[in-house]
Amino acid sequence: MDNKVTLGLVQISCTNHIEENIERTIARVIEAATRGAQIICLQELFDLPYLAQRVDIHGYELARSVEENPVLHRLGTLAGELGIVLIVPFYEKADRGLYFNTAAVFDVDGRLLGTTRKSHIPDGPQYHEKYYFTPGNSNYPVYSTRFGRIGVGICWDEWFPEVARILSLKGAEILFYPSAIGSEPDHPELSTKPIWEKAISAHGIYNGTFVAVVNRTGKEDEMTFYGGSFISNPFGEIISQLNGEEGVLVQEIDRNDISSARHLLQFLRDRRPETYAPLLHQELR
Amino acid sequence: MDNKVTLGLVQISCTNHIEENIERTIARVIEAATRGAQIICLQELFDLPYLAQRVDIHGYELARSVEENPVLHRLGTLAGELGIVLIVPFYEKADRGLYFNTAAVFDVDGRLLGTTRKSHIPDGPQYHEKYYFTPGNSNYPVYSTRFGRIGVGICWDEWFPEVARILSLKGAEILFYPSAIGSEPDHPELSTKPIWEKAISAHGIYNGTFVAVVNRTGKEDEMTFYGGSFISNPFGEIISQLNGEEGVLVQEIDRNDISSARHLLQFLRDRRPETYAPLLHQELR
Repeated sequence: MDNKVTLGLVQISCTNHIEENIERTIARVIEAATRGAQIICLQELFDLPYLAQRVDIHGYELARSVEENPVLHRLGTLAGELGIVLIVPFYEKADRGLYFNTAAVFDVDGRLLGTTRKSHIPDGPQYHEKYYFTPGNSNYPVYSTRFGRIGVGICWDEWFPEVARILSLKGAEILFYPSAIGSEPDHPELSTKPIWEKAISAHGIYNGTFVAVVNRTGKEDEMTFYGGSFISNPFGEIISQLNGEEGVLVQEIDRNDISSARHLLQFLRDRRPETYAPLLHQELR
Repeated sequence: MDNKVTLGLVQISCTNHIEENIERTIARVIEAATRGAQIICLQELFDLPYLAQRVDIHGYELARSVEENPVLHRLGTLAGELGIVLIVPFYEKADRGLYFNTAAVFDVDGRLLGTTRKSHIPDGPQYHEKYYFTPGNSNYPVYSTRFGRIGVGICWDEWFPEVARILSLKGAEILFYPSAIGSEPDHPELSTKPIWEKAISAHGIYNGTFVAVVNRTGKEDEMTFYGGSFISNPFGEIISQLNGEEGVLVQEIDRNDISSARHLLQFLRDRRPETYAPLLHQELR
């Protein structure tokens, strides 16, 4: 496998017209692949307006099972046609009343390698996710794709060092985080963007991995998403970033940088897992 | 307990004259207390030259037991006289042939609250720590001091999200990291300083805690330590920092900021400890 691999992140602004969101995304995927991207990641719930902005019982009707999801089928086929690895977040119906915030990973032949369900579910003003999504328990899979070993966390998952560590221990070279983050109604004066950039890129330092975050952008009713999708290297440096506009980020990375970082900052060598049992507790006061 | 508390960090440049290092440090502690500091932290192995720069069997002679350590005794007394909480890193002799890199915590009455042994031991060119220090297993204690609940990690410990998380789950409001970090002979072109600042301050974001890092400064033979001691808030923002000169950092913080951060970024609420068992493994390939 070549040590060089080119990543593509597709950052779009969604409307209530789902078909339009899909068409615009597909055009961007083709653009990214044409520019050389080999692993392409879409944003969280890529084709839907951010439904958790409000509590609405009709929202559940948007969920689809893996098997009966024409959008997934279409994008898997596209991955095969373009010869790319493609990460496709979607609203998953596991059963009537059991819904997950999930991402599907397709390999270059269009084959579904598996799905990762969002493990950590936020909840707050305009982020009513606990209403829509059950906390996933897909055990943090790592996927051996044609272009490298990758792990996926979905949005809120990206804030938990536990997730990044588990994926890295399993051999992930790149952590992909499809996201939807923006304004905070309780803190109109605060932008979480610099906090988010620091917290997410720092995972790369602790673990010696690349990190690729795809965030949605644009205004949806009361909410403004800030985009800013980025790729950071194993020293935690953001090497490429979009602004708040729709767009595609295409960036080549070199997997050799993983060894370089880990041979200087040997955290995997020096971990003390025999002392970490307290991490399995909710509280320790 | 007042929600406002003032922290003091003492950053000095050490020579081979141990007595002189002690005197200069004590003068700085008094200066910090005079300027209002209530919890004062010294740098890693504060009174010794950085002995791990080379492998030398005579280095072990510098270790002292907690009981028979006149420097610890003197600084404990000083803490009582000044009415401060004082964190004093030292080279601990547990037995002949069993040595730890440790920090003692004294409360405002001069009483020793306990010790924290460095858990994660680095090793590399000019950082031959595995020769001198056994990996500690003091179970990451959190100390209830007169001025707040604090946890301590020692240098390399500061790079491990596991340590910050365990201390925070145990109720630490401020994470203190006495350190000794500087030049990397294998990477003369690289400064780890920005990487270090990001990685360490980000712990504050994940956990909603303050972080206070004390790093030594100055040149010792082949090594240059970069100082840059800092305090960051529960949003991971560095709110006060020294440059590469000797000095004292005195900064008031407000414990109310912990609630503000945690009520916006509710990571403690949403953790999934039942899914974290993989963290107890060394590798998972």
